[in-house]
Amino acid sequence: MKEKAFQEYYSEYFSHCYGCGVLNEHGLRIKSYWDGEESVCAFQPRPHHTSFPGFVYGGLIASLIDCHSTATAAAAAYRSEDRAMDSDPPLRYVTASLKVDYLHPTPMGSPLELRSSIREIKGRKIVVDTRLSVDGKECVRGELVAVRIPDTMNAG
Amino acid sequence: MKEKAFQEYYSEYFSHCYGCGVLNEHGLRIKSYWDGEESVCAFQPRPHHTSFPGFVYGGLIASLIDCHSTATAAAAAYRSEDRAMDSDPPLRYVTASLKVDYLHPTPMGSPLELRSSIREIKGRKIVVDTRLSVDGKECVRGELVAVRIPDTMNAG
Repeated sequence: MKEKAFQEYYSEYFSHCYGCGVLNEHGLRIKSYWDGEESVCAFQPRPHHTSFPGFVYGGLIASLIDCHSTATAAAAAYRSEDRAMDSDPPLRYVTASLKVDYLHPTPMGSPLELRSSIREIKGRKIVVDTRLSVDGKECVRGELVAVRIPDTMNAG
Repeated sequence: MKEKAFQEYYSEYFSHCYGCGVLNEHGLRIKSYWDGEESVCAFQPRPHHTSFPGFVYGGLIASLIDCHSTATAAAAAYRSEDRAMDSDPPLRYVTASLKVDYLHPTPMGSPLELRSSIREIKGRKIVVDTRLSVDGKECVRGELVAVRIPDTMNAG
């Protein structure tokens, strides 16, 4: 049986996101999983996800880092409370700030691999570090501050 | 005669970008203009550009800030050299780093307005500050470091 992605535990209400919602048929539908202490996400850019010919669009990269990091924050919060990801109440995170450093142009062709780790969990705030690589070469680094949304917004 | 957008001066080679390329039929095709010392861009999110129901996807916002800021950097470079935007050699910029602060959730409905200003031009590097508002309310701030691409990459 295949392991479920973090995003496949989201309630219907939270499944419309352009980056990660399984119900958004126009969206990127990224999938994130644990790999030990890190979370991983593989994404194959489509031909129109370009910036200059031959290179991946930086806004797509920012989007992938955003959704993978907030999903990782939520998964880490469940883990830290020793809870299953489908247990109630749901834990969802939004982005307070996102920093992306483009170290090298990201080439088109192979899948992008994102690997994230938790730097800090402090109250409702979680800081997530992400590295994006192609064929083993690191091209981009991301740093995201995620904040748990108020329980009143957990309409799902 | 309608004023041309910054992006409409790009050569064919630089017109495939998902965020701003006029030739990318799947892309966002943003358009940026001067308004005095600031540059402006209006963008109407489509229904699938959502995060949670009723709110705009943060990755879209990062993408808009990215492309509008690098276009503004290029336009400012032409201005600082007192050159027309269709004069040779072309000046193009890429993102070295992008910082996005999500101050408030950005509501779906009205067009997003991005206004950017140049903080600093230093050699090949330009720092651009951006504010994103909806119906006059500021929701997001961006800070982007743009770097002029090497002349050898100016295949267009």
